[in-house]
Amino acid sequence: MTQGSYVEDSFERDTDYIQRRITADPGAEWPVEAGRYRLAVARACPWANRAIIVRRLLGLEDAISMAVAGPTHDADSWTFDLDPGGVDPVLGIPRLKDAYEAAFPGYPKGITVPAMVDVPSGQVVTNDYPVLTLDLSTQWRDHHREGAPDLYPEERRDEIDEVMQLVYEDVNNGVYRCGFAGKQSSYERAYHQLFDRLDWLEQRLTDQRYLVGDTITEADVRLFTTLARFDPVYHGHFKCNRNKLSEMPALWAYARDLFQTPGFGDTTDFVHIKSHYYEVHLDINPTGIVPLGPDLTAWVTPHGRAALGGRPFGDGTPPGPPPAHETVPPDHNPALELLAERAA
Amino acid sequence: MTQGSYVEDSFERDTDYIQRRITADPGAEWPVEAGRYRLAVARACPWANRAIIVRRLLGLEDAISMAVAGPTHDADSWTFDLDPGGVDPVLGIPRLKDAYEAAFPGYPKGITVPAMVDVPSGQVVTNDYPVLTLDLSTQWRDHHREGAPDLYPEERRDEIDEVMQLVYEDVNNGVYRCGFAGKQSSYERAYHQLFDRLDWLEQRLTDQRYLVGDTITEADVRLFTTLARFDPVYHGHFKCNRNKLSEMPALWAYARDLFQTPGFGDTTDFVHIKSHYYEVHLDINPTGIVPLGPDLTAWVTPHGRAALGGRPFGDGTPPGPPPAHETVPPDHNPALELLAERAA
Repeated sequence: MTQGSYVEDSFERDTDYIQRRITADPGAEWPVEAGRYRLAVARACPWANRAIIVRRLLGLEDAISMAVAGPTHDADSWTFDLDPGGVDPVLGIPRLKDAYEAAFPGYPKGITVPAMVDVPSGQVVTNDYPVLTLDLSTQWRDHHREGAPDLYPEERRDEIDEVMQLVYEDVNNGVYRCGFAGKQSSYERAYHQLFDRLDWLEQRLTDQRYLVGDTITEADVRLFTTLARFDPVYHGHFKCNRNKLSEMPALWAYARDLFQTPGFGDTTDFVHIKSHYYEVHLDINPTGIVPLGPDLTAWVTPHGRAALGGRPFGDGTPPGPPPAHETVPPDHNPALELLAERAA
Repeated sequence: MTQGSYVEDSFERDTDYIQRRITADPGAEWPVEAGRYRLAVARACPWANRAIIVRRLLGLEDAISMAVAGPTHDADSWTFDLDPGGVDPVLGIPRLKDAYEAAFPGYPKGITVPAMVDVPSGQVVTNDYPVLTLDLSTQWRDHHREGAPDLYPEERRDEIDEVMQLVYEDVNNGVYRCGFAGKQSSYERAYHQLFDRLDWLEQRLTDQRYLVGDTITEADVRLFTTLARFDPVYHGHFKCNRNKLSEMPALWAYARDLFQTPGFGDTTDFVHIKSHYYEVHLDINPTGIVPLGPDLTAWVTPHGRAALGGRPFGDGTPPGPPPAHETVPPDHNPALELLAERAA
């Protein structure tokens, strides 16, 4: 569910989220504690997909369980309609809204994913997604797997923050500003901002394997979840159609490189992604019909990016396969099936 | 304006047009006569664009004048809003509907272009577009320019008719059946039919420059007007998105070859095309926002099709440039500007 409003027909995301944090500070109100919290996500949502990827790269699956909402929702809330009986088996609630209400009765804003829920009290602790993923890196360090990468290295934070801010404004949120524009001029402004930034990224990634430094960082995670949705959704549905991602050689190879890295492609559910956008945004797609395209098999073609050097996981190692109960159904991502066949 | 209805949520084009014909037969009710008829078109419309191309290839500009409606219209009719005072200077009417009403008071069907209008009486003679263009070839022969090609050669008619029928069902009308589908299953059926046929065409055009024989025929004209609209409109707006036209090497080179042939690209108005579909079909694009993409400059890149042989105009010659008052505005087709620069 998208939280935002219109200012002179331009879509403005409401970035005022629940600012509570789960931290490793002594005496923290919401302390880091394995097994205590449940990460509520929807695989469709790019902001939630970031948290799914980071959790997996860091190996936090045992420390933080995951509640997966279905791809569509009504005006009210994301629902746990994928679970038996339509109820999340740990939280015991059918709608994510129930966890928001448990924390803030009459909660007036959008019910968004990702959200960290305190299992004992059933309360949402936070839905502040940009802080949430960084906290997984910095506050949950004691629970990271052996070989977990440092996605937010101290010495690179200024550059990472700067790149993430530009990418957020023009790309992550930029595609929404194209798609949700209320009039032609707002759309055109957002479109130019988006493609100017993509051109900048294309340039930056031509000689450089990752966005910052020579390892995968949070900045790559945040760009990836938008790129994965670009051709299947944003290109047509949000009118981001100067060209497809697949027509920008460096960016497309960069996206495929990440896609083929454990943690990225294997958390990408194209069926949920398309279903969400096309079935929920009936204001821009009144028929609710979900396009069959694009052909996704090219996601597993060779990307050639290793020639640029880089150490994907720095001094660490890639994560193993996802837990069986958390795998994306094979028919929801034909590219993954191809990848598995190729590896076999 | 699209004339059709729904049968179990599938869009069915109503092909029952006004079946009167303008012929060279002795004693014809509507006889071929230079200066008597006016061809009403909209550059946006693929069916009308066929007639514009054929008229130009055959050099019928002096024999049959042309009334150009604007790209958008209300539920009522195409209008002559591009003309001074919003009135066609020859017919003296603001709406094409007036010419239909003059012929058939209370005309109950869609007001469609192309339509041949009898100037003296102000009556529409026919809007039966597939017959109309063939009649320009066969009935108006005495008025063709010197060097006009034979777009409907006798010895090839069976094959031309057969190919045109397949292309009509699956491609020309197929894209509409994708875009106007009332439910998911109707859309998916149309989508598979469309891309199966495009794959068939890709194959056919890999070793063969034109659809039938080794010269441009009516079959090429009919396929071209759909291909020209594919990436700018049908790919996103009608969800024909397995891939872009530009991702099918033979078809894309074939389309560029025709585009760069006098009569094709120089009658293609991308601004009218996009404006029409995105602003008129508010049932599938409620915001009426017109996408800025795609980048159209690739239309003038080298196509390499001459290597396949073929004689575009057979024993004839290409038409000269269009009359000054009938040129597409340069900013409505950036590719044409590039083509002109390249030629200069």
